[in-house]
Amino acid sequence: MSKNEQKLLIIPLGGLGEIGKNMTVIQYEREILVIDAGLMFPEEEMLGVDMVIPDISYLVENKDMVKGILITHGHEDHIGALPYVLQQINVPIYGTKLTMGLVEGKLKEAKFKKSVNMNVINPPASVKIGSLNVEFFRVNHSIPDSVGIAIHTPLGTVCHTGDFKFDQTPVDGKIADLHKLAELGSKGVLVLLSDSTNAERQGYTMSEKVVGGTIEEIFSKAKGRIIVATFATNIHRIQQVFDAAFKFGRKVAVVGRSMVNTVNIALNLGYLSIPKNLMVELDDINKLSKEKVVIITTGSQGEPMSALTRMAMSEHKKVEIIPGDTVLIAATPIPGNEKLVARTIDHLFKQGAEVIYEAISGVHVSGHASQEELKLMLNLVKPRYFVPVHGEYRHLIHHANLAKEVGIPEKNIFIAENGRIIEFTKDSARLAGKVTAGKVMVDGLGVGDVGNIVLRDRKQLAQDGILIVVVTIDKETTEVVAGPDIISRGFVYVRESEELMEQSKEIVRQALKKCQEEKVTEWSMIKSQVRDTLGKFLFEQTHRRPMILPIIMEV
Amino acid sequence: MSKNEQKLLIIPLGGLGEIGKNMTVIQYEREILVIDAGLMFPEEEMLGVDMVIPDISYLVENKDMVKGILITHGHEDHIGALPYVLQQINVPIYGTKLTMGLVEGKLKEAKFKKSVNMNVINPPASVKIGSLNVEFFRVNHSIPDSVGIAIHTPLGTVCHTGDFKFDQTPVDGKIADLHKLAELGSKGVLVLLSDSTNAERQGYTMSEKVVGGTIEEIFSKAKGRIIVATFATNIHRIQQVFDAAFKFGRKVAVVGRSMVNTVNIALNLGYLSIPKNLMVELDDINKLSKEKVVIITTGSQGEPMSALTRMAMSEHKKVEIIPGDTVLIAATPIPGNEKLVARTIDHLFKQGAEVIYEAISGVHVSGHASQEELKLMLNLVKPRYFVPVHGEYRHLIHHANLAKEVGIPEKNIFIAENGRIIEFTKDSARLAGKVTAGKVMVDGLGVGDVGNIVLRDRKQLAQDGILIVVVTIDKETTEVVAGPDIISRGFVYVRESEELMEQSKEIVRQALKKCQEEKVTEWSMIKSQVRDTLGKFLFEQTHRRPMILPIIMEV
Repeated sequence: MSKNEQKLLIIPLGGLGEIGKNMTVIQYEREILVIDAGLMFPEEEMLGVDMVIPDISYLVENKDMVKGILITHGHEDHIGALPYVLQQINVPIYGTKLTMGLVEGKLKEAKFKKSVNMNVINPPASVKIGSLNVEFFRVNHSIPDSVGIAIHTPLGTVCHTGDFKFDQTPVDGKIADLHKLAELGSKGVLVLLSDSTNAERQGYTMSEKVVGGTIEEIFSKAKGRIIVATFATNIHRIQQVFDAAFKFGRKVAVVGRSMVNTVNIALNLGYLSIPKNLMVELDDINKLSKEKVVIITTGSQGEPMSALTRMAMSEHKKVEIIPGDTVLIAATPIPGNEKLVARTIDHLFKQGAEVIYEAISGVHVSGHASQEELKLMLNLVKPRYFVPVHGEYRHLIHHANLAKEVGIPEKNIFIAENGRIIEFTKDSARLAGKVTAGKVMVDGLGVGDVGNIVLRDRKQLAQDGILIVVVTIDKETTEVVAGPDIISRGFVYVRESEELMEQSKEIVRQALKKCQEEKVTEWSMIKSQVRDTLGKFLFEQTHRRPMILPIIMEV
Repeated sequence: MSKNEQKLLIIPLGGLGEIGKNMTVIQYEREILVIDAGLMFPEEEMLGVDMVIPDISYLVENKDMVKGILITHGHEDHIGALPYVLQQINVPIYGTKLTMGLVEGKLKEAKFKKSVNMNVINPPASVKIGSLNVEFFRVNHSIPDSVGIAIHTPLGTVCHTGDFKFDQTPVDGKIADLHKLAELGSKGVLVLLSDSTNAERQGYTMSEKVVGGTIEEIFSKAKGRIIVATFATNIHRIQQVFDAAFKFGRKVAVVGRSMVNTVNIALNLGYLSIPKNLMVELDDINKLSKEKVVIITTGSQGEPMSALTRMAMSEHKKVEIIPGDTVLIAATPIPGNEKLVARTIDHLFKQGAEVIYEAISGVHVSGHASQEELKLMLNLVKPRYFVPVHGEYRHLIHHANLAKEVGIPEKNIFIAENGRIIEFTKDSARLAGKVTAGKVMVDGLGVGDVGNIVLRDRKQLAQDGILIVVVTIDKETTEVVAGPDIISRGFVYVRESEELMEQSKEIVRQALKKCQEEKVTEWSMIKSQVRDTLGKFLFEQTHRRPMILPIIMEV
């Protein structure tokens, strides 16, 4: 291979082997375009962590090459890392009107101070970014104004689907740009990167309109108030709730911070069409009779602080669930939230509501393409190479199998991982080296200051709590002058365990005495002696392993 | 109501409003029979807790009245609390042969020392316990030898289904005792307590034989080794794996402690029928060619320490996953385990295995009756009163709705909760008072010593860690003679936060000085001053709220 050969690199920095924190680097020669900058919600074992963002060391190191960040749509797993990324590399960003509206809201919320070069795209659109032509084309997804992206490089076209499905009857009438995809396919696409989220699911994903039908049916039967919980960004579903309310002569109040925010953004930008006087203030709903009321709310994931959960727990300031209410949870639990959602449903039933949810009714459809649509995408785009993206490992594998089924040679399919370089030259493609990639944990204001040691400690503390042993020693004589005192938290209920604490002190006294007798004077040795002896004793007594923290004070 | 009127009480002590720790008290006059004594796995927020058992205060208070514990089948949520219950009330227990075999194993594992009066029942069977006649009749479930129970009292018959489904083609040929149920119904049943687990599911639950068909199909295609993970107690499924192995000329090795245990118990008691030489030691499988090997293993729930998970992580001592292996996860994730199972599947794919699991194939059927079967049970038994049991609140509601559909009057249906007394007299039935009931948490050797305070502390520790502030004060002068020292765990990565720690010390110094100036001498006041000031500072700096523990040593 000649050293001067042109190279195109594709480097996923997030979204491979995981659902979330999507970010893909497209690098041609000395120019980098980044697709999406998303966050991921923390795994269960990331105790206390608020969110996870991609490690962007590679972008920071190559700051000068980065020409722009292209956003496919306004979901958190595509825009959520922007405040952190722009803090380090403030480059122009590109996206559709609604997407940019949501990004703006996000930056404001994060109190982002710098000015950002934001470019609104109206698809189908072609934009020159750096030296490359970039095309944005419509796809369908569970948020309006979603796009896929085609980047034309001298080595060929890179096509990225973003998150997508093919909805033949979308609520806003804007179907995925089949013609653009066909055109790209006809002209020739070097490599397709396609959404793998639903690669396990057979058949087609149903149209969002199906949910509208279910909503209407529920509205036609409900006698009391109707409370609908759904994703705040699913504007089409929210539109369908408003439409049903209008049809059945009900007024709508919007509840929950993020729901109020997105509804306002969508209204201002023209993505929701709501007849005058259909919306009412929450404070005014009690003036209406019950069969005239609809409440749209957050909380479809059973999030403990959300409006619906607070209603279910009788903790909401303004809305109390009453018998006769119909609660519609128009969402599916995101993996990991199943139990929270189930608990909310149970509490709603206990308050006397009729609850309609996914397990028993068709009140949700996915925003991601199922197998038949994934194959359709492959057949339309007819790429030479294929990289399944956006999915856990098994999703990528299933998606790769679908690609094989439609005739992509196995050697032209790359199952990559975050940080892996997929390198293209004029005649070849291969998995090359790796760049730094990974999970950066955000906890409060700290970005990356929580690492494995902190998490390991939190885990131990969470399991069995902590015992603190304090002793004051005379630095001349090494005699104990105060203590040992023992304080525990999260270990045992202290009042019932006085005897155990007394015994523990005695164990510590003996350990200290032994150290003195054996002329052990180094503090670290004394501490480890205390830790080991007491730990052994406590395990024998309780079969628990609290963290033991000996503190020696010198006077 | 005359004071001397006979009364029958039904008191659920577990299993209502929850899945797990099933236990029901049937009390006629001065005699108590207990049905089941199960455990529950801890909820997510019960940090560090090993298991949860029912609060049996009511039984302990009425020890002399308890005549026996009747066990419906050998699952943990029906037998798991026995070692703790028998410790406090050592009464005779009754159950079928396999159930008693598993109870015996359980007591041995718990190092239970006392002798237990165990009575093996061979259904259909009628036994006199105290003054009451008790009938045990077969039902189908995901473990062999499951029974329902009819207790005949002078006020009428109480019928408890246990966990059940109607399998018309069960693997062992023993269908649920339709004729006994019909007979009970004809003679008249006062009250039916029936399993609500699948009350949300329409239609019928499929026969376990369906899984056998899928297993055979997979065996017919697999080229390399086959590894099957399933529930250790699903003996029928295990039998079907052995049958398929025999048919396709493979040998079977059994892996995983609980799998080895139950297979041995089932073999010894005659519940597994395995041709000679079909089973091989795990150490010998490498002597066989790959297409001759089947491994049956634990780990179908992605449990971190289980055999399959260790294989997936390349941490198993004896089995390494290799490309060409077919791994069959013949189970569905129990709610809460979805992410663990998904992670195991991903790792298996990464090792190169072909993985077959529920989301993509019919390798699991439920052990619980769906709506049509629940209605069939109601129509067979024709009870006067109905109490849905074994389910979270929404399951009980759905089950109650099914009962209404088949004609049980709403006023005769009781949705109860743990501890609630359902009282029957000759002419009436009502929800009466309550007895003590609840969750007793078991953590290590401690039963009930972990309560809300301990859990609240563990939660705070898990979220943001702990900061310990130690200062030594001269008790005469109240001058600080050593410290303040600050030690943190699980808060920030210390080496990167030296400045924050120095600032924190300064904050503490100022707080102490202020106390001295203001002549605050009470320790609790000083501590709370330190806690508040430092907490505020740290929140401003980090947006975290670690536990702050001030310790004052006096010399």
